[in-house]
Amino acid sequence: MADANHFDVVILGAGSGGYACALRAAQLGLSVALVEKGNLGGTCLHVGCIPTKALLHAAEVADAARDAEQFGVRATLDGIDMAGVNAYKDGVVQRLFKGLTGLIKGRGITVVEGSGRLTAPNTVTVDGPEGSAAYVGTNVVLASGSYSRTLPGLEIDGERVITSEHALTLDRVPASVVVLGGGVIGCEFASVWSSFGAEVTIVEALPRLMAAEDADSSKQLERAFRKRKIKALTGTPFQKVELLDTGVRVHVEGADPIEAELLLVAVGRGPTTDDLGYAEAGVAMDRGFVLADETCRTSVPNVFAVGDIVPGLQLAHRGFAQGILVAEEIAGLNPKPIDEAGIPRVTYCDPELASVGLTEAQARELHGDAVETLTYDLGGNGKSQILKTQGSVKLVRRADGPVIGIHLVGARVGELIGEAQLIFNWEAYPDDVAPLVHAHPTQNEALGEAHLALAGKPLHAHS
Amino acid sequence: MADANHFDVVILGAGSGGYACALRAAQLGLSVALVEKGNLGGTCLHVGCIPTKALLHAAEVADAARDAEQFGVRATLDGIDMAGVNAYKDGVVQRLFKGLTGLIKGRGITVVEGSGRLTAPNTVTVDGPEGSAAYVGTNVVLASGSYSRTLPGLEIDGERVITSEHALTLDRVPASVVVLGGGVIGCEFASVWSSFGAEVTIVEALPRLMAAEDADSSKQLERAFRKRKIKALTGTPFQKVELLDTGVRVHVEGADPIEAELLLVAVGRGPTTDDLGYAEAGVAMDRGFVLADETCRTSVPNVFAVGDIVPGLQLAHRGFAQGILVAEEIAGLNPKPIDEAGIPRVTYCDPELASVGLTEAQARELHGDAVETLTYDLGGNGKSQILKTQGSVKLVRRADGPVIGIHLVGARVGELIGEAQLIFNWEAYPDDVAPLVHAHPTQNEALGEAHLALAGKPLHAHS
Repeated sequence: MADANHFDVVILGAGSGGYACALRAAQLGLSVALVEKGNLGGTCLHVGCIPTKALLHAAEVADAARDAEQFGVRATLDGIDMAGVNAYKDGVVQRLFKGLTGLIKGRGITVVEGSGRLTAPNTVTVDGPEGSAAYVGTNVVLASGSYSRTLPGLEIDGERVITSEHALTLDRVPASVVVLGGGVIGCEFASVWSSFGAEVTIVEALPRLMAAEDADSSKQLERAFRKRKIKALTGTPFQKVELLDTGVRVHVEGADPIEAELLLVAVGRGPTTDDLGYAEAGVAMDRGFVLADETCRTSVPNVFAVGDIVPGLQLAHRGFAQGILVAEEIAGLNPKPIDEAGIPRVTYCDPELASVGLTEAQARELHGDAVETLTYDLGGNGKSQILKTQGSVKLVRRADGPVIGIHLVGARVGELIGEAQLIFNWEAYPDDVAPLVHAHPTQNEALGEAHLALAGKPLHAHS
Repeated sequence: MADANHFDVVILGAGSGGYACALRAAQLGLSVALVEKGNLGGTCLHVGCIPTKALLHAAEVADAARDAEQFGVRATLDGIDMAGVNAYKDGVVQRLFKGLTGLIKGRGITVVEGSGRLTAPNTVTVDGPEGSAAYVGTNVVLASGSYSRTLPGLEIDGERVITSEHALTLDRVPASVVVLGGGVIGCEFASVWSSFGAEVTIVEALPRLMAAEDADSSKQLERAFRKRKIKALTGTPFQKVELLDTGVRVHVEGADPIEAELLLVAVGRGPTTDDLGYAEAGVAMDRGFVLADETCRTSVPNVFAVGDIVPGLQLAHRGFAQGILVAEEIAGLNPKPIDEAGIPRVTYCDPELASVGLTEAQARELHGDAVETLTYDLGGNGKSQILKTQGSVKLVRRADGPVIGIHLVGARVGELIGEAQLIFNWEAYPDDVAPLVHAHPTQNEALGEAHLALAGKPLHAHS
């Protein structure tokens, strides 16, 4: 073992949570070692948010060309060049990766390449290209991220039965796909492949797609997917997959087997915490996740945890916020804890789903009948009509109280969640938003109209 | 003359300001007569915001098809079918018009078809299809809207020298156009026609395009237009136009004459107030505009004015807000005056410009050196990279004070102005926004990143 290196903060994992913590800690004058066996940026940058959104944009371009005639544009969609799509996607990732590498370097952070393990509450031992070395931290931050899960007995072969990581490097558009899982990842890939011309069937055991979202959002998404000829079998548990010469035969409960070229397993992401020494060092765990309090502190003093290994929303921007919070906590700035409900959630399929705060069901569980809702249909919104998209803005409020949930469906509505999260996080009343002027004709004015209506003074809506 | 009809409110003009006032007044239990010689919806719905944004979306579709290869999509742009574009555009207008007609009817508003004149401080006399009739209002609201202006001596023939109204019904894509005026209307049409394949030259007397916006926004727009081969002659006053057999020859100061198929005159919109009896009834005017106080009240008691005839921003959403304000004022609700600086402004060309609050120059005029700015480049924003757009978020704050100006450039950034206007109107400090979590990867997180940086804790930005 090499001589121990001592840092104010040693971070195990350079995904969103880890690198955000490193950047903020370094900025606050702390010395930082950032341990990573893969690439700076982790899941989000390399196999998650960024490459999937590039595919989704290519899908949007394909749809624009296919449907151009509706808008008076004569265009022909000749096909999808997956090598070209991948080059575009990889170009975006590389450019952002280069930027991130520059930021990390610019703030004087020590990047340690190799596999790290927690070998003592203050020590991360790294097996890297130049042997093994121990890094001692006054504080240690666990940020080891997540991996694509599968179901018991369902083996991923990377060829016919694949995860989203494999899907991102596919060199062709499959003729047909079964997507196992109707959550964010499943719906996004279903949307991409359908736009690229594949026949897509989603298999979901729960009774609806996007079951974590408001039930009305699921209903609208299911309707939109039906229109797009994406088949969704909800309330349909998976049984098993047979490998065929040319693809797969997927057996499900209560419906005929489905044959397809590929099975995408999109049943969620598990915490990457096995064999990393966390439990041995005394860190309290729960089914593989690391337990942490509202400042992301684990059961071991001076060991923190951020990102997908902490129970809750597995989102890059939650990781960023946690990473910043931990750095500020270590620096003694007493940062305000993160309100998990105030973290916006976006699913980037077509139509997009975006939300912040409570669903109607959650609100009713908390407040009983003292809940009001208002749904503003995008049929009344000029820009949405121009985009030929359907959807709605649904507001949930505590009776005579602030807005506690905002749920959006429609093409491009993910961008409206910025204003929505301010409304939620600043605990605004409908009357705080209603008199403010929204630009016409935008989609974001639908948020203004919804607040006008909820405040009892609908403009472009029936009273 | 028929017997006089008496209403709580008589509104002269059913554009954005007029109909919004009617809808809100009716909802508050007031009896309303809405006088209109054209169509409900006025400029915005029929020859302004809505049809131009439909053209801009058709332009986006054309660009998507043309540039599809950059995203791995094999597509061919075969041409623009202007009949198809117009059918799409008219379909959107008709659908919204139908919705608006239903709303007006549903609230029991009396719609009076015909040309109205203010014949006494409380009387609008209408020449309609069934003769002349006087409508007496306890309150009268002037909302007669605006028209496309031209320059002295520059005659609009509707064929080769046209306004935006003519441009909206053009049955072909011109091979080449000179656009006189580099403001909102000029830049939007320049953008559309360039996407449709025309050769476009903008002639602007002021030293920059979009001169009312922050100088940095103009600079970025000019750069983007240059890349798109849109020629912009700024600081170049118009001299005269010669009509040729096949088009026009436009003479300007300090540059060679420009030949083109068409000249679009986009030098702004004037108030429609001539011969309407306003001045005769004692309403104070200024160069054709109607003067009004902060509750939109004119110099004549119980006569109000809203929309494009009131000096200030000529925007539909300002009209909506004024219309609502006047209805509430008449109903005795004592509404809060509208802060004109808090009204968001969007130009929907590619790239889009959007802003709220003060430009840097305006802020420095008010606060001298006590002004800080921060520019966050969209190069660091994943979603903008995915869209392959360039641009920035520029924040202007009073030193140690709230954010007093937000300026956005880039494809689709118009939608981000919803959050931006909340920040401005709620007088937020950078530290109020910085800790709030923005969704990744959206364009709206660039607003979050900009506030993080301005608060001294940049994440994806150099410190």
